Amino acid sequence: MTADIIDGKAFAAQVRERVGRQVAVLKAESKLTPGLAVVLVGEDPASKVYVRNKGKSTAEAGMKSEEIRLEASATQEEVLEVVTRLNEDPSIHGILVQLPLPKQVDEMAVLDAIDPAKDVDGFHVINTGRQAVGLPAMVPCTPLGCIMMLKDKLGELSGLNAVVVGRSNIVGKPMASLLLAESCTVTIAHSRTKDLPSVCRNADILVAAVGRPEMIRGDWVKPGATVIDVGINRIEKDDGKTKLVGDVCFSEAVEIAGAITPVPGGVGPMTIACLLANTVTAACRQAGIEEPNP
Amino acid sequence: MTADIIDGKAFAAQVRERVGRQVAVLKAESKLTPGLAVVLVGEDPASKVYVRNKGKSTAEAGMKSEEIRLEASATQEEVLEVVTRLNEDPSIHGILVQLPLPKQVDEMAVLDAIDPAKDVDGFHVINTGRQAVGLPAMVPCTPLGCIMMLKDKLGELSGLNAVVVGRSNIVGKPMASLLLAESCTVTIAHSRTKDLPSVCRNADILVAAVGRPEMIRGDWVKPGATVIDVGINRIEKDDGKTKLVGDVCFSEAVEIAGAITPVPGGVGPMTIACLLANTVTAACRQAGIEEPNP
Repeated sequence: MTADIIDGKAFAAQVRERVGRQVAVLKAESKLTPGLAVVLVGEDPASKVYVRNKGKSTAEAGMKSEEIRLEASATQEEVLEVVTRLNEDPSIHGILVQLPLPKQVDEMAVLDAIDPAKDVDGFHVINTGRQAVGLPAMVPCTPLGCIMMLKDKLGELSGLNAVVVGRSNIVGKPMASLLLAESCTVTIAHSRTKDLPSVCRNADILVAAVGRPEMIRGDWVKPGATVIDVGINRIEKDDGKTKLVGDVCFSEAVEIAGAITPVPGGVGPMTIACLLANTVTAACRQAGIEEPNP
Repeated sequence: MTADIIDGKAFAAQVRERVGRQVAVLKAESKLTPGLAVVLVGEDPASKVYVRNKGKSTAEAGMKSEEIRLEASATQEEVLEVVTRLNEDPSIHGILVQLPLPKQVDEMAVLDAIDPAKDVDGFHVINTGRQAVGLPAMVPCTPLGCIMMLKDKLGELSGLNAVVVGRSNIVGKPMASLLLAESCTVTIAHSRTKDLPSVCRNADILVAAVGRPEMIRGDWVKPGATVIDVGINRIEKDDGKTKLVGDVCFSEAVEIAGAITPVPGGVGPMTIACLLANTVTAACRQAGIEEPNP
């Protein structure tokens, strides 16, 4: 048997189109243009690519896009001033501060300063807490994208055994929390877990988010399981060139799983799509109107 | 083999004595008397007993104890006014609003109004979020008591398989989060879990917090496991009298487990002890001094 390949690129395109339709409805019916501001501090090349892509996708969806660039030498006070201004700007509904920040800037203090209602990255502790207890919250984009793909593929998730490998604050923990909210039986495994292969073999849903190339082998996968690979690792091939691989050994797992996300082209494209979706959600909540369902 | 019985009453007494010594040090060396305020709205008999016990234990530990009683007919505004006054009172370091509140009062709004630094119940979403991401937080008393008993019994918890049965916001979820912070491999099971007995049988640490009398049977317990029973259920005996039982069938599990908490006399007594410990923690953090370790 060969697994279904979950096409994250195609699914993300659907999500972005849906967001575009929502934005059109909001503009026409509520005179509301959702606005997303991205703050980039310094010249990190990867961050610059991300920020450019985010700005482009935001504009394509019909939203207002604002990009604020600060020098790598920016002080914490300068970054906080920008955040405060954006918090107060009624045309901005989502604020994203691109990480990592330069050493002289305290990331936690900056994230903490973002109005939780505008925290489209879902990293503010108030959103973490609200999501944990089941209140409406802004949810981190990557785990949100994973849940959307799982529900699209499997329908109802209730009662399924989900294993999340990795316990980071930006993926593993919120992923586990979202799966629990879907009534999965959730196990969080990590570097201290004993006999990780057999823990993984118990999973109907296996989410890998550890950042170790191809760590999860084919025989760790339960036959027919749905495998979501959040890892993006660049490794060197025999010919000296590099390629991107996930945390799962795709060539092995694809023979065992029922469905699997590839790397690249799986979870990755969903992250920006979910950022746009979160911005619409944030704008509607701030305006006190229901999210359109076009 | 018969399991060790974990004597929660004796352990709680040790914790209370330790808190008493800490309070003595704080008074002598820092002129700081930790203060705990308990707010009781209405005449619920069980709540009145709890509040009385809390006040008594607080005073016994040498702390300031304040009890505020409001009529069952109190408005939300009246309750919020009390909370605001206590937030601003520098002699009060911990605020506990006894639940449940009368119907006309929005519990979430009241809990949300408590200064997170004084939230000794650990129910504020900011504390939930801070605990989830690994920042210093006020932690709910019952799961904190369970972790203290587990560490006392087992020492290092890292790498152990922990299964939490139940996913309430006040016990199950924070318990899972605390066990994860101790580097356990954590599974959260609940009413939708398939084949709960075999999930439980995988647990080195089994925490039952479902509120269903004696649901967890002896043959669900892995031989030698440590069983923490958070349930307190009153059931009718054959002779028509009632007795308290846990969520675990104690008479069966005691033959299989390595260690087990009884009901009553297990987790229960730890809750007030942890409330006192949390009040000392809160007072020290508010004063910006280190917690004494006498």
